Amino acid sequence: MLYLVKLYADQQALGGGDKRIEIGAGDAAQARLWKAEGRLMGLWRRADCGGAVFVIDAESHEALASDLQALPLFPYLRNIKVTPLLAHPAFPECSKS
Amino acid sequence: MLYLVKLYADQQALGGGDKRIEIGAGDAAQARLWKAEGRLMGLWRRADCGGAVFVIDAESHEALASDLQALPLFPYLRNIKVTPLLAHPAFPECSKS
Amino acid sequence: MLYLVKLYADQQALGGGDKRIEIGAGDAAQARLWKAEGRLMGLWRRADCGGAVFVIDAESHEALASDLQALPLFPYLRNIKVTPLLAHPAFPECSKS
Amino acid sequence: MLYLVKLYADQQALGGGDKRIEIGAGDAAQARLWKAEGRLMGLWRRADCGGAVFVIDAESHEALASDLQALPLFPYLRNIKVTPLLAHPAFPECSKS
Amino acid sequence: MLYLVKLYADQQALGGGDKRIEIGAGDAAQARLWKAEGRLMGLWRRADCGGAVFVIDAESHEALASDLQALPLFPYLRNIKVTPLLAHPAFPECSKS
Amino acid sequence: MLYLVKLYADQQALGGGDKRIEIGAGDAAQARLWKAEGRLMGLWRRADCGGAVFVIDAESHEALASDLQALPLFPYLRNIKVTPLLAHPAFPECSKS
Amino acid sequence: MLYLVKLYADQQALGGGDKRIEIGAGDAAQARLWKAEGRLMGLWRRADCGGAVFVIDAESHEALASDLQALPLFPYLRNIKVTPLLAHPAFPECSKS
Amino acid sequence: MLYLVKLYADQQALGGGDKRIEIGAGDAAQARLWKAEGRLMGLWRRADCGGAVFVIDAESHEALASDLQALPLFPYLRNIKVTPLLAHPAFPECSKS
Amino acid sequence: MLYLVKLYADQQALGGGDKRIEIGAGDAAQARLWKAEGRLMGLWRRADCGGAVFVIDAESHEALASDLQALPLFPYLRNIKVTPLLAHPAFPECSKS
Amino acid sequence: MLYLVKLYADQQALGGGDKRIEIGAGDAAQARLWKAEGRLMGLWRRADCGGAVFVIDAESHEALASDLQALPLFPYLRNIKVTPLLAHPAFPECSKS
Repeated sequence: MLYLVKLYADQQALGGGDKRIEIGAGDAAQARLWKAEGRLMGLWRRADCGGAVFVIDAESHEALASDLQALPLFPYLRNIKVTPLLAHPAFPECSKS
Repeated sequence: MLYLVKLYADQQALGGGDKRIEIGAGDAAQARLWKAEGRLMGLWRRADCGGAVFVIDAESHEALASDLQALPLFPYLRNIKVTPLLAHPAFPECSKS
Repeated sequence: MLYLVKLYADQQALGGGDKRIEIGAGDAAQARLWKAEGRLMGLWRRADCGGAVFVIDAESHEALASDLQALPLFPYLRNIKVTPLLAHPAFPECSKS
Repeated sequence: MLYLVKLYADQQALGGGDKRIEIGAGDAAQARLWKAEGRLMGLWRRADCGGAVFVIDAESHEALASDLQALPLFPYLRNIKVTPLLAHPAFPECSKS
Repeated sequence: MLYLVKLYADQQALGGGDKRIEIGAGDAAQARLWKAEGRLMGLWRRADCGGAVFVIDAESHEALASDLQALPLFPYLRNIKVTPLLAHPAFPECSKS
Repeated sequence: MLYLVKLYADQQALGGGDKRIEIGAGDAAQARLWKAEGRLMGLWRRADCGGAVFVIDAESHEALASDLQALPLFPYLRNIKVTPLLAHPAFPECSKS
Repeated sequence: MLYLVKLYADQQALGGGDKRIEIGAGDAAQARLWKAEGRLMGLWRRADCGGAVFVIDAESHEALASDLQALPLFPYLRNIKVTPLLAHPAFPECSKS
Repeated sequence: MLYLVKLYADQQALGGGDKRIEIGAGDAAQARLWKAEGRLMGLWRRADCGGAVFVIDAESHEALASDLQALPLFPYLRNIKVTPLLAHPAFPECSKS
Repeated sequence: MLYLVKLYADQQALGGGDKRIEIGAGDAAQARLWKAEGRLMGLWRRADCGGAVFVIDAESHEALASDLQALPLFPYLRNIKVTPLLAHPAFPECSKS
Repeated sequence: MLYLVKLYADQQALGGGDKRIEIGAGDAAQARLWKAEGRLMGLWRRADCGGAVFVIDAESHEALASDLQALPLFPYLRNIKVTPLLAHPAFPECSKS
């Protein structure tokens, strides 16, 4: 099932330098896994530099939560917005990676 | 360029019956055009029945606005939220339809 | 999967009298179906008289949306808030009707 | 009487590691008590990883507040939303554990 | 148990003249009943002319909802905010009318 | 004149242990003074454990502000909501302690 | 005592033409009364054309509410924000008209 | 002086067809006047089709309000957000048309 | 020109004791300057102890910003709300100190 | 394409003194680059001292994000609001620096 997920990181707590790069790389690796599993419909970043936005297919809410907690960025997230999505009747293909 | 778009329709003004079906069909036809043009990254509906969510590639903000105004649903929209998106460095493919 | 759903009806549009009673009865009948299917974890009303709150197990977001649209009250809803829920690790039983 | 309760923890203050596990276990033990007393209608977690959601039967507002303060997580809560619920006339059973 | 209740009426729908006076008188009669039953801790109006504020002792959430629905003003209410209150340990007397 | 006052304390800054107990006792002592002066219409706590709610009769806004600043909890308050109240025409007695 | 008052009129309900002018004149006459009584500290309009802002000295919350209800604009107000003000210790003169 | 102004029109009240075109043309003519007077720093439309955004130099708040009320769209505006702007010290030229 | 200004201080950062008194005195001295210049229409404090509210006549937005930054309290302000005001046609005198 | 950008800095984290001046100078230098590239439609500061507001022409959302991250102030920003803008049909010139 599809979920639109918006991440809001605590930029001051995250800081800069290597830590931020390392965490970003870890998140990307995680996302590649999702992609390989055919579960990532799309992954983008907000142009306001506020964080990532992605549409992910997860078997269940539980699977989604595990996906979120597997992100190295997770401890630095001050808010996560989750919006359950439906396949659009005219565009079923958008719901398959 | 990519935009995350959330539509909020005035359900009472839209009413039900044929008009709603006709407008839905018209919107879907419009979206198929976007898809054929390779511009629709994804089109879904919110599970809260509040309206559509889509990620669209538009050449410019102007093109996006035209896309929105071309929707038969447009006159019934009480709010439209537009979030500019960036391709994710690790997932450029998500930004090509 | 579980969803916490809060309904916000347009009380003026809904009006009073038989129509409101009839719609209420129709909604209850719908909920009994969910219950018979073992999908209704709980159905309550908010004490602020603002509308119903329920936790429902739906196979998918699509199933949830169909459930919502099957409610006679649906055309009178000005807002629906949907929060995906996880079974609590220590209380799996709360996730089975 | 029934209360829908949403907990919002200060994730940074809570931190990770043993402390978080220990607090989680303590909360679960507390909830088992409620369950044994027949007072817990349901306990879930939000899929946005923001915290727990539960419907609890407490004799009074006072009893509810004591329940909340008995949670090991209590000192780390930056917000608690409490919504009083009514039994639904068509579903009295949802109001008995 | 005590509830702080704030009423928000749709002033345009309520209109002026006799209807508003009649409804006001009906609400006051209702409140006198609560008072006679020893359940009304206090009833005031907001100085912003937005509506009534009262602290009422109701046996249960159900009783509270019935109290609200018994108000002639009920059909004209666009929002009702209910905040469950506890007796203050140092001021038990505030919780008895 | 009457004011509905809601206090929002910074729970982390307030911490627990003796300090919290001492401050609570100080606040209660202060409230007893108000009561003795016939100025406290009601003092309660919110069941969401968010803080106190009270209706106080203060001679003037200045007197109210002094009352608030006299509370030992004052330095730990991150927000105070003040709503001026009117005596209800049908219930003048609610406006006298 | 001083109150900062912001008025929010329903511009569509108010309409234009003579009615708006007549109501405006009526409001101004009312304000002149306040001024003559030495109660109007200041009366301005918001540059966003959203409505009036004034600081008024009213003997009590009741007096303030009467002042508001005496305005011809009152039936067209969809919201009124009232903020109780204190004289500033260094500027007592600001609190006398 | 400079003001950032965001207009929010009531799209349903405005409707479509000739009226909308006529009003749009009238607004544009008004803006051309501002431009000719060297007062319009920029005029754009929001890509969310929600309305115009402009930075205007007005001699005073009064002049700004007159500018707003001179717009044919004015009666259809449900909200206007006005943000006073300063010239940026490093970019004085941005503050001259 | 007139501005309604609301100050929101970070009370914890400001702390108490001499520093708070010293800053308060500094602010008052600053305001006396404004008064002497005939620019201060009114200066009050909110009864919710949240901070100062004043209506000031500043030659320009720039002058206003300088006024704000000249306040000793400025580094402790977490938010400043500025609302441009117009003289009321019926009360020009309110716009002259 | 044009973007309206509002910056919200964490004033306490930014502090005062040389660091603030140095960062301000760095930001200005960055903006001069944009200006030289013909991309800066306008750069202003909010009179509420809350931060900068600018309209920038960026080739793409990506270019915009790079522009934002190139600002020395970037690590101190707790929020950035980005609103995509369209050229106004009657004022194409506003969309060229």
